[in-house]
Order: sequence, then C-alpha cells, then structure tokens
Amino acid sequence: MTEKIRVEKKLLSENNRRAGVIRRKLAEHKILCLNFVSSPGSGKTSLLEKTLASLGGRISMALIAGDVQTDNDARRLSRAGGPIVHAVTTGGACHLDAAMIGTVLDKLDPATIDLLIIENVGNLVCPAGFDLGEDMKVVLISTAEGDDKPLKYPAMFRRASVMVINKIDLLGLSDFETDRARENALLINRGLTIFDISCRTGAGLENWYAWLEEQIKLKKSSRP
Amino acid sequence: MTEKIRVEKKLLSENNRRAGVIRRKLAEHKILCLNFVSSPGSGKTSLLEKTLASLGGRISMALIAGDVQTDNDARRLSRAGGPIVHAVTTGGACHLDAAMIGTVLDKLDPATIDLLIIENVGNLVCPAGFDLGEDMKVVLISTAEGDDKPLKYPAMFRRASVMVINKIDLLGLSDFETDRARENALLINRGLTIFDISCRTGAGLENWYAWLEEQIKLKKSSRP
Repeated sequence: MTEKIRVEKKLLSENNRRAGVIRRKLAEHKILCLNFVSSPGSGKTSLLEKTLASLGGRISMALIAGDVQTDNDARRLSRAGGPIVHAVTTGGACHLDAAMIGTVLDKLDPATIDLLIIENVGNLVCPAGFDLGEDMKVVLISTAEGDDKPLKYPAMFRRASVMVINKIDLLGLSDFETDRARENALLINRGLTIFDISCRTGAGLENWYAWLEEQIKLKKSSRP
Repeated sequence: MTEKIRVEKKLLSENNRRAGVIRRKLAEHKILCLNFVSSPGSGKTSLLEKTLASLGGRISMALIAGDVQTDNDARRLSRAGGPIVHAVTTGGACHLDAAMIGTVLDKLDPATIDLLIIENVGNLVCPAGFDLGEDMKVVLISTAEGDDKPLKYPAMFRRASVMVINKIDLLGLSDFETDRARENALLINRGLTIFDISCRTGAGLENWYAWLEEQIKLKKSSRP
C-alpha cells in the first residue's frame, strides 16, 4: 500500500499547489468562492437555482457545476441563470479537483465576477480531501437523510464552514431532528454557521441570501 | 497521471483477485451474498433492520456493515439482529474492498450462513468499482433524492442487479416520479429488478422479502 499512499500524496500536493494559484487569483480580484458539497440528492442544485433567481440580478456570479456523467445540473442552472453556468463532467471521477476549476477559470474574465460558486459531485466522502481554492465549503444535508451524517462523515463537516439543513418542510415525516443534527455537527466542528431551509417552500432562504450578500461585501472590503 | 492509473489498475486487479477468492468460498458453501450500495441516507440500514426483524428467525444471516468512521449502522443492526452483525470502519476510505470483507469472513463459520449481506459506505460513486465477491449489488435510491440519479451515477446502476426505490411514503412531497426513476434506471441497465418500498410504512416490503427468500433458495440449489 506504500506505493498507493506515495502516489496519493503526490496528487494531493499537486492539487494543493493548483488550489493555491486559484486562491491567489480570487483574492486579487476579491471574488468570494463557495464550494458546495453534499450527498447526491440533498438539494445543491435546487438551492443554487433559488440563489441565482433571487440574487442573479444584482450580484455578478459564475457557477461551475460538476457532475460525474451528465450535465443535468448545469442545464438546470442555465435555465435559472443563463450563460454564467459552466459544466464540468469528471468522466467517472468522484470529486472535482483544482485542475478542473483552473481550466474553467482561465476562460473567464475575473474582473466581472463577485461570486464564484462551485457545485461539487454528490459525494460526502471524497470531495472533502480536495481543496479547490475556495473561501469556504458549504455542506448540505437534507432532513430525508439521517441526522447522524456529521458523525458518519466527519471529514466533510470538519472542513466545511457552513452547514445548510435542507427540506425542513419534510420534518416530522422521518426520524430526523434538526436539534440532533445541529448538535452532531457542532460536536465535529463548533465553528459551523448553520441554516435551516426548504427550497420547496422558500422557508429560511432570506437568511441565506442575507448572509451570502454580507460575505460578498466582506470579501470586497478585504485586502487583495 | 500515468503513474496514478498504473497504481489504480494494480490495486483493482489485487481487489479482483481477493473478490474471486471470496466468491469461490461463498459458492462452495452456497451462501447468497448481496452488496447494498446507495447515497448516504437512502435507507440501507433501515431496510436491513426490517429484513433482519422479518427473516432473521428463519434464515441464517451474517451482516457486514461498513462505515467511514462510526459503527452507528452496525450498532443499529445489532439491536435488530444480535451477534451476526460485524462492523467494518474504513477509517476514511470511501468504499469497502475485498480485503476488508475477506478478513471478516475468515472469522465466520461459512457452514452456518445462508445469506451474507454487506452494507457498503454511503457513496454512489466509488463502491461501484470494487467487487466484493457478491452475487449482486442492490442499489437504493430514495424518493427524496432526484429521479435522475441513475443517469448521473450510471456506473453504479449499470453494475447493480436490483434497484430499490425507498421512501415511497414521501411521493408527492418532491418532484420525484417513480415512473421516471424506473425509466432512467432501465435506460442504463434494462436487466434491473426494481422494488418500490417504504421502510417507514412497510409498503412493498413483502415483495422484497419474497424475492430475497427465492434468491436464497436458488443459491441453495445451485451447483457449488
């Protein structure tokens, strides 16, 4: 297994180098970058559709939607946001890496972007290990999943800055309890900012939009 | 990337060799082996709890519950089935491999087992590539996820023999349509056997139990 570990280390260090290049570029242009991660089906694309529809008019965004095979997510997002959506198909790989993001970023004009959102592959394990140069990872869980997810997939919750609990309209229809999810998440990472939302009913989304606009302002006022 | 591909090929071929050893051992003792795969939170553990409670009295089962970090699933299953549950914690790895299964199997007496169930790590991508010596992969999706999952994660659905659509009690509360999920799945793999169930209400479980008992009988009557 030594050979495997050696090659993995080399790949990760190469990824970290590329992520550093991306991070410096984003800092220079004061672009806030969020990396959205979750299980398949937690609602990343739905939240981004809502966010695009609500803030797209006054915030200049770019979206990179990663998928293992199809460009379904990118097509859904394009309907909500037009030409600012860029699809990356990993061709079977279980995560996005910094090289994929760098390639898309090289084609964009950074001076025109305030917010870069990356929608990672639906996978609570592997994307945790790959820095994409983002300011923060945003991890979604849905109330239709178990509230023990933070304990079972701790690496992802440890590396995230924000946890969004989606589908709160389904509370009561499963054993999921938001208090317990919150408690489990804070056990792993007590610095997490947490939002309870429902993309279906719109509950909680105003808080999310307000936080997002605030973060963009903070980034704009940061030193390059 | 050539080095990475070379090492991955070597690891996979080593895994396949070990899976072959497991498969021969299971065939010799006529043990049916199912490998359960899905996103986190689709309901693998719930379905196995129900299956243990319903069939545990008359079928001799062993369960291997894999998890990235905790042994939560194994503990839940132990409450339903007692000492036949074996926990494997991958320590961060995104899938079970044949070596992990082989180690557990070496400690069991194969003559006492009719059905071996493996609950894989919650991940729709990586476990697709790792043969564990099973007769079939059983892939679960939940109606709280999107019905385009088979298109977005085709490798897993292509390699599965059975698809279980869980949480049908939540139909109508999301955009999920079972017909569309079924259609998408059969596009990827038209040999799939499909079950619609709800672990919460019990709907559809009788069909699942009957199918499972039939498969065990078929395996028992197979040539070693």
